[in-house]
Amino acid sequence: MNALGKHLLMELKDCNKEVLNDIGFLRGILLAAANEAGATVLGESFHHFNPHGVSGVVIIAESHLLIHTWPEYGYAAVDIFTCGDSVQPEKAAQMLREKLGAKNHSMVEIQRGILDTQ
Amino acid sequence: MNALGKHLLMELKDCNKEVLNDIGFLRGILLAAANEAGATVLGESFHHFNPHGVSGVVIIAESHLLIHTWPEYGYAAVDIFTCGDSVQPEKAAQMLREKLGAKNHSMVEIQRGILDTQ
Repeated sequence: MNALGKHLLMELKDCNKEVLNDIGFLRGILLAAANEAGATVLGESFHHFNPHGVSGVVIIAESHLLIHTWPEYGYAAVDIFTCGDSVQPEKAAQMLREKLGAKNHSMVEIQRGILDTQ
Repeated sequence: MNALGKHLLMELKDCNKEVLNDIGFLRGILLAAANEAGATVLGESFHHFNPHGVSGVVIIAESHLLIHTWPEYGYAAVDIFTCGDSVQPEKAAQMLREKLGAKNHSMVEIQRGILDTQ
């Protein structure tokens, strides 16, 4: 069964609350995770919320990496959506889990774009 | 059961192939869909691929709207991730389905950030 895209949805809990509120740190690790996966970065958009929380996305040639954080709960939602066989999204997932200090996590993989023609 | 975020994952099939390759049109409808949902736009990043296909994201105060298109298959993956009760993501979903001319679609809703403390 071929799909156009592989979408990893990660629930990262009991993270380091300080880093979840550090937009510079989060931007750095998303870009590093894209690189770790072998992806090509095309663009980005990051925002810090008052009083806390960050949303950020890195658009890659192979789709995207994305994070929303709730520092007050030690929680981050992370999505890694890739297409093609040239990237290794699991490497990005592992790096992000480690860098955010997630003591608990779950991950779901969803196949996107399963087409009748394939 | 309270969750921090509501994540709609849409598979849009048999879409209008021309609009799936029109970055200006897609940017316009994602921004319009954010507005339709009552969301506040904070940032965006859109990219057109050679020879075809577009990836784009709109970061909103309530999380994000995102699209990846494969015009050659008439397929688009659309994600709408929102938090809070002030937005109506289903309205954005309906608008995007209609504007892309999707003759077939499916949608999954995933609760993100279900925390033990809630």
